[in-house]
Amino acid sequence: MALSTTPTITAFERSPDRGRGLARDMRVRWALEEAGQPYDVRLVSFKTMKEPAHRALSPFGQIPTYEEGGLALFESGAIVFHIAERHGGLLPADANARSRAISWMFAALNTVEPPIIERSMAALFDQDKPWYAERLPVLEDRVRARLGELSSRLGDADWLDGAFSAADLLMVTVLRRLGSSGLLDEYPKLCAYISRGEARPAYQRAFAAQLAVFTAQSSAG
Amino acid sequence: MALSTTPTITAFERSPDRGRGLARDMRVRWALEEAGQPYDVRLVSFKTMKEPAHRALSPFGQIPTYEEGGLALFESGAIVFHIAERHGGLLPADANARSRAISWMFAALNTVEPPIIERSMAALFDQDKPWYAERLPVLEDRVRARLGELSSRLGDADWLDGAFSAADLLMVTVLRRLGSSGLLDEYPKLCAYISRGEARPAYQRAFAAQLAVFTAQSSAG
Repeated sequence: MALSTTPTITAFERSPDRGRGLARDMRVRWALEEAGQPYDVRLVSFKTMKEPAHRALSPFGQIPTYEEGGLALFESGAIVFHIAERHGGLLPADANARSRAISWMFAALNTVEPPIIERSMAALFDQDKPWYAERLPVLEDRVRARLGELSSRLGDADWLDGAFSAADLLMVTVLRRLGSSGLLDEYPKLCAYISRGEARPAYQRAFAAQLAVFTAQSSAG
Repeated sequence: MALSTTPTITAFERSPDRGRGLARDMRVRWALEEAGQPYDVRLVSFKTMKEPAHRALSPFGQIPTYEEGGLALFESGAIVFHIAERHGGLLPADANARSRAISWMFAALNTVEPPIIERSMAALFDQDKPWYAERLPVLEDRVRARLGELSSRLGDADWLDGAFSAADLLMVTVLRRLGSSGLLDEYPKLCAYISRGEARPAYQRAFAAQLAVFTAQSSAG
């Protein structure tokens, strides 16, 4: 299926991560760059993303969305998969290897990401609570369990299962959300894995593009 | 790709939900029943699922896994997708409708399920904590936000986007995890949606099969 139109994605007008590439449009930008597919971006505010026009595209009022001709998609994982199905380089050609890569895509988003988000939410909203000091180590141990398992499986390989794929793209972006938590420092193999992802030219172009939005919006006032 | 061998999935030897169909093998059983695909089940204990033999199949030591000839998959979402790609009836034939169904599959597992799991974890592990009474309403409001958005989008439709698909299969199993929380009672459209899922003959066969495991194991020991 050839793309007849340039797709349009949505991203935060002012990303709360201040351009560190942690918002979920980064995944889609990276996939589009790996695919060599030009794209347009429509910026949405926290207010407009909860309004009916955006919710028609994204039922849960989130970014990113993806529009291409008459097609509208939501959920970063699904959008990355859509791009991977239609372009080379993001999923293996071999049927079994492709199915395994899809296992890792779901693992990134349904097994590794949730405890990372839970920890971030606590750090964001509960720091002033009397029980934060008791709760944080519990949440961090849940994250550590996943990081340890992931690091063991990765071992000395460059990527999760053979060549770089959409699974690595998602996993690297999920791990990057740990940002300045310090948790990644305990897993040097995962740090090296993230660095390999960040070193890819497509990652760098995607990162620069999302940072440019933040910089432009900040200087605009 | 024709299936040349009967697939084998793994499930809990003794499911902590006591056969209520909330463990993630239910999703895979249901998909296999919708597809009319016979399957074998290998039961694993909480101990064996964390050992190297099982971790070779499931890096995070979870159930279900899926083995078929030389292929081994993990993550219920990926396994359901694998089944849906190889059999009729679980994904639309139209390319755009198929991509939209995949958006809903990821939404079920990456947007709707995480706050539901977080609430369950708190109910399971934090009930004796002094801050549980303060924290529970916050967690429940996060779940309500997703349920409200989902209910609005579903409206009076039978299924999320046209005919029943793997997306509905996943979403129904995710919503069922709210079990006796009482939260679903506030969303009659979602209750009716779950009931439509549970009324499907394939669901009922899958439910009976996982319940039979629990019943047999309980009477055995």
